[in-house]
Amino acid sequence: MSRNSAKKRRTGFQQERELVAKLWKLGFAVMRAPASGAKIIRAKYPDIVAIKNGKIFVFEVKTREKPSTIYVESNQVDKIREFSKRAGGKAFIAVKIRNGSGWRFIPIERLEQTPRGNYRVTLDELKRALTLNELKNIADDLRPLTDFIQA
Amino acid sequence: MSRNSAKKRRTGFQQERELVAKLWKLGFAVMRAPASGAKIIRAKYPDIVAIKNGKIFVFEVKTREKPSTIYVESNQVDKIREFSKRAGGKAFIAVKIRNGSGWRFIPIERLEQTPRGNYRVTLDELKRALTLNELKNIADDLRPLTDFIQA
Repeated sequence: MSRNSAKKRRTGFQQERELVAKLWKLGFAVMRAPASGAKIIRAKYPDIVAIKNGKIFVFEVKTREKPSTIYVESNQVDKIREFSKRAGGKAFIAVKIRNGSGWRFIPIERLEQTPRGNYRVTLDELKRALTLNELKNIADDLRPLTDFIQA
Repeated sequence: MSRNSAKKRRTGFQQERELVAKLWKLGFAVMRAPASGAKIIRAKYPDIVAIKNGKIFVFEVKTREKPSTIYVESNQVDKIREFSKRAGGKAFIAVKIRNGSGWRFIPIERLEQTPRGNYRVTLDELKRALTLNELKNIADDLRPLTDFIQA
């Protein structure tokens, strides 16, 4: 692994741990996927699963320095879609903008497909994305998820 | 770490992976805790979480060669109790008897407390414990969990 990708991976893990801590503080039960070299196993696990009051949130985590269009590989979307379907939960891309708005959550229903069959979060969707507090309000039944995702 | 405890740990991981595979095959979304050296992080994670149709099952995994009384430390029980309370799920000790009945699941409500405040699964409770198929039937709403746990 190059020094650059090792650094990128380390940053990714730090951000995942931060999100786990924030969700735990908000009262969620949170689990992070095994991170060790076992790529085959990791392949089917989401980065993070957070559960509260029986509401299940499944996350693929992305981190960027500044707001931008974010590309997501189709296998990563398929993975969290399958997991959340089995679980009876909802799948999101969790985005941390390090020099900006902090954490935002984009339901996979709002992803745009690219010509090659991958996905992207547009800047527009990034702006409309849910905050941590909105996720908590959904889990606490203060707001329905359908406020954010058209059925 | 001694050779013996390294071997024990390896056996434990193999058994956890086996349970993950079995639950996945039954249609559950399954996640195993990060296993790497990070003991502090592992401290609050259950060994395995399995979810189906919004039903959440939280496991601490134990493995024995033959049926016997199984002792569980209070901090391990507290951990899965807290996690399942946050999640809105149910906590179990998952026991694999390697030369015997295979996997059995004991709801933590059925544990007996020891004089020192730890817990044990008695041989009687091990015999009454749920099978993998019974867990699946609960998740599929074919049987209510209250068939197995008195409210």
